[in-house]
Amino acid sequence: MQQRSESSSLDRSTRHFRNTDYVVNESRTYFDAVHAAGLMALYGRSTSGRAFALGTGPSDSRSEVIDFVRCSYLGLDNHPMVVAGAIEAIQAHHSLHWSCARTRLNFDLIAELESTLSDMFSVRVLAFSTVMLANLGAMPLLASGQLTGGRKPVVVFDRSAHISLAYHKPVVADETRVETIAHNDIDALERFCRKHSAVAYVCDGVYSMGGTSPIKELRQLQEHYGLFLYVDDAHGISLFGREGEGFARSQFPQVLGDRTIIAASLGKGFGASGGILMLGTADQEALFRRYSIPYAFSVAPNLAAVGAGLGSCKIHRSVELSERQGRLAKRIEVFDRRVATAEQGNSLPIRMISIGSEANAIAIAGEILNAGFYTSVTFFPTVARGKAGIRVCITADHEVGDIERLCDCILERVPNATAKPRMASALASDS
Amino acid sequence: MQQRSESSSLDRSTRHFRNTDYVVNESRTYFDAVHAAGLMALYGRSTSGRAFALGTGPSDSRSEVIDFVRCSYLGLDNHPMVVAGAIEAIQAHHSLHWSCARTRLNFDLIAELESTLSDMFSVRVLAFSTVMLANLGAMPLLASGQLTGGRKPVVVFDRSAHISLAYHKPVVADETRVETIAHNDIDALERFCRKHSAVAYVCDGVYSMGGTSPIKELRQLQEHYGLFLYVDDAHGISLFGREGEGFARSQFPQVLGDRTIIAASLGKGFGASGGILMLGTADQEALFRRYSIPYAFSVAPNLAAVGAGLGSCKIHRSVELSERQGRLAKRIEVFDRRVATAEQGNSLPIRMISIGSEANAIAIAGEILNAGFYTSVTFFPTVARGKAGIRVCITADHEVGDIERLCDCILERVPNATAKPRMASALASDS
Repeated sequence: MQQRSESSSLDRSTRHFRNTDYVVNESRTYFDAVHAAGLMALYGRSTSGRAFALGTGPSDSRSEVIDFVRCSYLGLDNHPMVVAGAIEAIQAHHSLHWSCARTRLNFDLIAELESTLSDMFSVRVLAFSTVMLANLGAMPLLASGQLTGGRKPVVVFDRSAHISLAYHKPVVADETRVETIAHNDIDALERFCRKHSAVAYVCDGVYSMGGTSPIKELRQLQEHYGLFLYVDDAHGISLFGREGEGFARSQFPQVLGDRTIIAASLGKGFGASGGILMLGTADQEALFRRYSIPYAFSVAPNLAAVGAGLGSCKIHRSVELSERQGRLAKRIEVFDRRVATAEQGNSLPIRMISIGSEANAIAIAGEILNAGFYTSVTFFPTVARGKAGIRVCITADHEVGDIERLCDCILERVPNATAKPRMASALASDS
Repeated sequence: MQQRSESSSLDRSTRHFRNTDYVVNESRTYFDAVHAAGLMALYGRSTSGRAFALGTGPSDSRSEVIDFVRCSYLGLDNHPMVVAGAIEAIQAHHSLHWSCARTRLNFDLIAELESTLSDMFSVRVLAFSTVMLANLGAMPLLASGQLTGGRKPVVVFDRSAHISLAYHKPVVADETRVETIAHNDIDALERFCRKHSAVAYVCDGVYSMGGTSPIKELRQLQEHYGLFLYVDDAHGISLFGREGEGFARSQFPQVLGDRTIIAASLGKGFGASGGILMLGTADQEALFRRYSIPYAFSVAPNLAAVGAGLGSCKIHRSVELSERQGRLAKRIEVFDRRVATAEQGNSLPIRMISIGSEANAIAIAGEILNAGFYTSVTFFPTVARGKAGIRVCITADHEVGDIERLCDCILERVPNATAKPRMASALASDS
């Protein structure tokens, strides 16, 4: 690390959206403490279910930890059909990866994956190697006006939109006007809709740090004003819908139309690897298959990702999907009966335990890890300073007993997170 | 597609680095023609060597095509050790992918891959899911001044730097001053070095559209002025060096030092999947392992990519590497004896056949495809208008006879590309 930046005449004139130097300097001590506590940069090996063997040494020397960090919400990331799909695809081609742009040459199996997903979600699906790249490809096209009838939109970002979206603000601002509004501030968004003929809103479906977008209200703005919606539903896919179309897609009509794009993950709930865009029209599909930068200048998801995706599609089209969705809902409820969070009672699998001071959050997450549970300690710059906490990702694959034991661990250390009996009984009566 | 953008008051004030709408509108007819000619968006299945079965239908109905598009320059992308490595890694973990940030939890095998590559290349290697994301993570850190002693550098881009670098100009410009200079204009770069105490230069090692950076001259500027170098050597890795450290790395001293970062691909010459950064110091490594955005907010290369990478490392550390490097050199020479290009005589595997008009380039590439060879037709916006051509990627795995037949096909249609006898004999005497 370097010493703090000298103040220079460039600073004030150029700083606008980002200040990397400031973030690095202001968060260094937190990162040092989190690493010293052994809470970041962990290595391990899958064992079974949500357990992993911690470390890189001989396997009999490693301790087993129950993981509440990774986002495989339906527990599909080690499902035999996902693993078999990955291996079969590699074997069918005697290859893992073709090093060329998707605009040129593609594995036949990626056509099958895109067509299967398109059918499942009633959209036009394009696959990318990650959601971050799917978003990168979309942002300049959104800015260009090509998605909004040739009129460059005012692009409004939710302040909490994932960094894989917010990163691109300066790129979008190079082509059109960019605004940032408070989290889920529908009134502010409506004011832009009233004033401008073309407005696009960029948000997450399910927020990685808890909560969701108000899709119903956004759809009302779309119907009244023609608002264009770009929703990153990386954390919402698979959890809802008959074939796992996800939090966002399941709240739009059967025909997605020409004013909504949904990004989603093929990892996380879906259980494979890679990202997708859900598009509504043939024109949009042609535009992205030519001009999306990662589509034209980076690479496709590799064959293992494609094969795993095809394996997961089979699960998504079977009764197992709703069984797993139900198991997840039950496990979220188990957690909510014990531990109070801002997310309590919503149907998403992300729970944030508020702690406050960074030092306390780190100490508590360290004790929880020593007790055999790996959680994510969250701190600046991911959340505001003094608002540190612990993120718990619940999955369909967790043993109920492990969730109960995690709750015990949390409540011993954060007693004011104890769920109130009223809420607990209200939840019980819903079940 | 939408109609041409209305002129708006936003346009002039905001346009600076990018103009997506213009690019889309101005290149539409070219894309239409290339797709109509069946030269883009191809699908196929690996058969053997550089051949693939074209299409997605029943395998006996597909024609076989020799591929000169993909960048597997050493022919490793279907090497049995690469394929076996991918499958073994998946089997060892009963998983393909863990959906979480690298700052949190990592497969043990990625530690092995990074440590093996670090040892091979005498650097500190960080792996990413693609080179595009490796670059995305680096650009804000370069802008921040954290890599240049706390002083924000003037960041100078080569005009031909890959779009995975150039894309980020507005992001970099949000934090510091950005300049773009003519391709390989060392004099212009030196003028910036004379005027400013901190300058960073962003370029490719081997350019995807032909040619290279003058690494020797860049190193001289580095020694004289302390210039920071960021070199994307995606196309140069594996082709040079005893263990495949590549075009750029092989021209730097054993100790890389604190003023050079090299990005490279684990696809392309390396034959696996993913991207890496080569760093020179522990401080840089700590910085990237905390603050690189894809490292902290996207995902690792999946286990198949990691396993394939480990398989390829074994090849890179065996005599097979230099054998394949030699076979590639011989095949480039075979091509150069017949067909004249701007790249003739250099030791890189990318050759650009200049044609000029887009319509001619498309027609000729179409005829070559009908003859059984798939090449990349290049046109605006990848190259300037009226400078269309055909890109040929030669690999160690091509049959010499197939290269000869491709040359025949090209010269029948582009007779002025016939290599001059003098050059041909000079090349012959070198061999």
